[in-house]
Amino acid sequence: MEKVEPRTLSGFLELLPEEQILFNQLQDIIRETYEKYGFLPLDTPVIEYSSVLLAKAGGETEKQIYRFNKGDNDLSLRFDLTVPLAKYVAKNYNDLIFPFKRYQIGKVYRGERSQKGRFREFYQCDIDIIGDNELSLLNDAQIPCVISEIFTKMNIGKFTIRINNRKLLNGLFQSLQVENNTKEILREIDKIDKIGEEKVKENLLDLNLSQEQVKGVLNFIKISGSTNEKIEQLEMLNIKNETFLLGLEEIKTVISYMRDLGMKEENFTIDLTIARGLDYYTGTVYETILNDYPSIGSICSGGRFDSLAEFYTDKKLPGVGMSIGLTRLFYQLREAGIIKVEKKTLLDVLLISMTNNSNYVLNVAKQARDQDIKVDVCDLEKTTKQKFKYANRIQVPYVGIIGEEEEQENKISLKNMQTGEQELLTIEEFIRKIKD
Amino acid sequence: MEKVEPRTLSGFLELLPEEQILFNQLQDIIRETYEKYGFLPLDTPVIEYSSVLLAKAGGETEKQIYRFNKGDNDLSLRFDLTVPLAKYVAKNYNDLIFPFKRYQIGKVYRGERSQKGRFREFYQCDIDIIGDNELSLLNDAQIPCVISEIFTKMNIGKFTIRINNRKLLNGLFQSLQVENNTKEILREIDKIDKIGEEKVKENLLDLNLSQEQVKGVLNFIKISGSTNEKIEQLEMLNIKNETFLLGLEEIKTVISYMRDLGMKEENFTIDLTIARGLDYYTGTVYETILNDYPSIGSICSGGRFDSLAEFYTDKKLPGVGMSIGLTRLFYQLREAGIIKVEKKTLLDVLLISMTNNSNYVLNVAKQARDQDIKVDVCDLEKTTKQKFKYANRIQVPYVGIIGEEEEQENKISLKNMQTGEQELLTIEEFIRKIKD
Repeated sequence: MEKVEPRTLSGFLELLPEEQILFNQLQDIIRETYEKYGFLPLDTPVIEYSSVLLAKAGGETEKQIYRFNKGDNDLSLRFDLTVPLAKYVAKNYNDLIFPFKRYQIGKVYRGERSQKGRFREFYQCDIDIIGDNELSLLNDAQIPCVISEIFTKMNIGKFTIRINNRKLLNGLFQSLQVENNTKEILREIDKIDKIGEEKVKENLLDLNLSQEQVKGVLNFIKISGSTNEKIEQLEMLNIKNETFLLGLEEIKTVISYMRDLGMKEENFTIDLTIARGLDYYTGTVYETILNDYPSIGSICSGGRFDSLAEFYTDKKLPGVGMSIGLTRLFYQLREAGIIKVEKKTLLDVLLISMTNNSNYVLNVAKQARDQDIKVDVCDLEKTTKQKFKYANRIQVPYVGIIGEEEEQENKISLKNMQTGEQELLTIEEFIRKIKD
Repeated sequence: MEKVEPRTLSGFLELLPEEQILFNQLQDIIRETYEKYGFLPLDTPVIEYSSVLLAKAGGETEKQIYRFNKGDNDLSLRFDLTVPLAKYVAKNYNDLIFPFKRYQIGKVYRGERSQKGRFREFYQCDIDIIGDNELSLLNDAQIPCVISEIFTKMNIGKFTIRINNRKLLNGLFQSLQVENNTKEILREIDKIDKIGEEKVKENLLDLNLSQEQVKGVLNFIKISGSTNEKIEQLEMLNIKNETFLLGLEEIKTVISYMRDLGMKEENFTIDLTIARGLDYYTGTVYETILNDYPSIGSICSGGRFDSLAEFYTDKKLPGVGMSIGLTRLFYQLREAGIIKVEKKTLLDVLLISMTNNSNYVLNVAKQARDQDIKVDVCDLEKTTKQKFKYANRIQVPYVGIIGEEEEQENKISLKNMQTGEQELLTIEEFIRKIKD
């Protein structure tokens, strides 16, 4: 028979089992922590009506989307989890309890140009809190606490959640009367780490900003020091614009709540250059970087928005959320050697029979499984050598050896595969030992 | 602004949060049990090259598939998890350890005609064990043990895993010299519960079987009694065909192993009418029914196959597996009232501040979270009435009330929302109480 080459599409991550174990460990941390903070699970379809999914989109998104017809329907694969959330909340408004806190972990699709570290199918792990008409700033503080706990548990080194408030930027620009140039100015601000202050100054002057306006922008983004020092300096700018003052009040409140919630100072900072999406976010915005690997870029971003679902409903649904792009994060962490494959099996113990009598060894497996021990039995027909080779290859921590003596005495010889130590135990002792 | 109607495609299950909690409970049982038996996680892409996915398929599958072009690529959404497994094993043959035990829980897509209880996007939860050239019958016994443990834990009532061996059927048909009518005969056998023995007999005669041949078929499928009685009667048929005798030996071995593994007699039976896929399965086959709801049909099926990946590789890769169609199962269990929504929140406790001082209440939240208690803090700005209304609506089991007295004494009033009981506790007592 002619064979088809078993290929996987480029841009689609497909892991070996030991890598998948590692991936799932990270995903489990995310899920457990989201749930611990009271976020409810959600699972929306991967396929939606194009008209629903693209109610807002345009430009880049529309080009990247996987879109096709099936029967009479114009369908698309979701490209994020926010639009499906907006649809969901608008659709189920009457059945939801607000503030509605939900998490969703799922695959999304973007047909980007394939390149290293870029994926066309990737996991997003989102949390959002949606209010009905209003939403307390306490939520803006809880979100980064969840994320901070996740990255701490992942044990991936020092990280910093950078926080800003869009009202500070908007208010500043209003006060400087440069709000019509917001987009261009933000683009220049974003470059300051790369090209330096002098060059940014030049570029801003090229945008027809006056010396005074450029100074106003630079004074703002040059603010530095500790979180408290930054807040002090923001106050000392003495900007009377209402939007700016509201932004200042908001960021102070959010940071105060974060401290009350036990967020460590080392895990967050105010970063006045962060803007995120231009039209979408209206208050708090977040980015997260790994201190020792800034080149990876933001590993978790998000912010506050005034209106989740305006394309579907007249209801005002303000929200705040963050998203971890797990597939890309996993890939980057592995590339940088920050995480490593540690186990090739989920088993606690593999049982090996030397006599090939099925009765006793399978019964031992049953007793161990009844106590929730992760156990498997090596195929009986193999030779002893093959059985131990298999045990070594899967790197199982313990092997339970059952020979004639063990069968007669209702016992098991438990071998620690790391140390080579072996001891003869009763079944009860064996189970207790593995459970500890 | 004109609004887009927030619709979800028909045939796509999208649950309310409290339903999703219930769905996830079932999914967690499946995953934990699969892992307990040593199955490794796998997560293959939802999209594959059409040429890869359709290497074998044809007929119905091809009609139902979601297929489209993106750039120069002819792509399809996976319609099951077996074909992607075959591709994966052929592709990664050199990096896998055999027998390769994997589970995969993921969404698959079939554009079937939309009808009640039929889904176009649905979860499959598969386990398979793949051997390299050979595979012990012990694996055929372990698979139904995993499934049995899952349905026991799900607490969905009495169930029976029906087991047969394709070699029994094939051998019988060979011995009766009716193997060219296999397909048609199996179709008639399948109807016996519905149309009765007499009508099946008529139909078999219409297929040009002789009286003798019909008698041979009916004697076989009429075998009844306990598992041991059925085996005895199979032996007494005195069929000399080699395939038949091999099948008999296999089913006896598998059942013997299942008993050794502690499988309860009430949870399995030999059912000689089960055939499953015609071309695919070659040995053990399984179906699972809920005893009190036979009309739901098989909730978990599978079997033994000689060759997993023959379309991709010359390697002989025999395997055995079963699959739970979780989306359909969940839907059916809910429709039948066998499972019910029990919680609307994952929280253990909701903290309500009466003073609106953020410091103490948020610090209590932090301390509880440090002990892995699932806790949230009610938005501070709400009125007391609104806060308790929210607590009632989300049906949280405990509310932690913090007023002036509690703040001064470093305590918390814990209210059991079911009984109404309330007690003043230290933070340590509170944490201990919730943890118990």
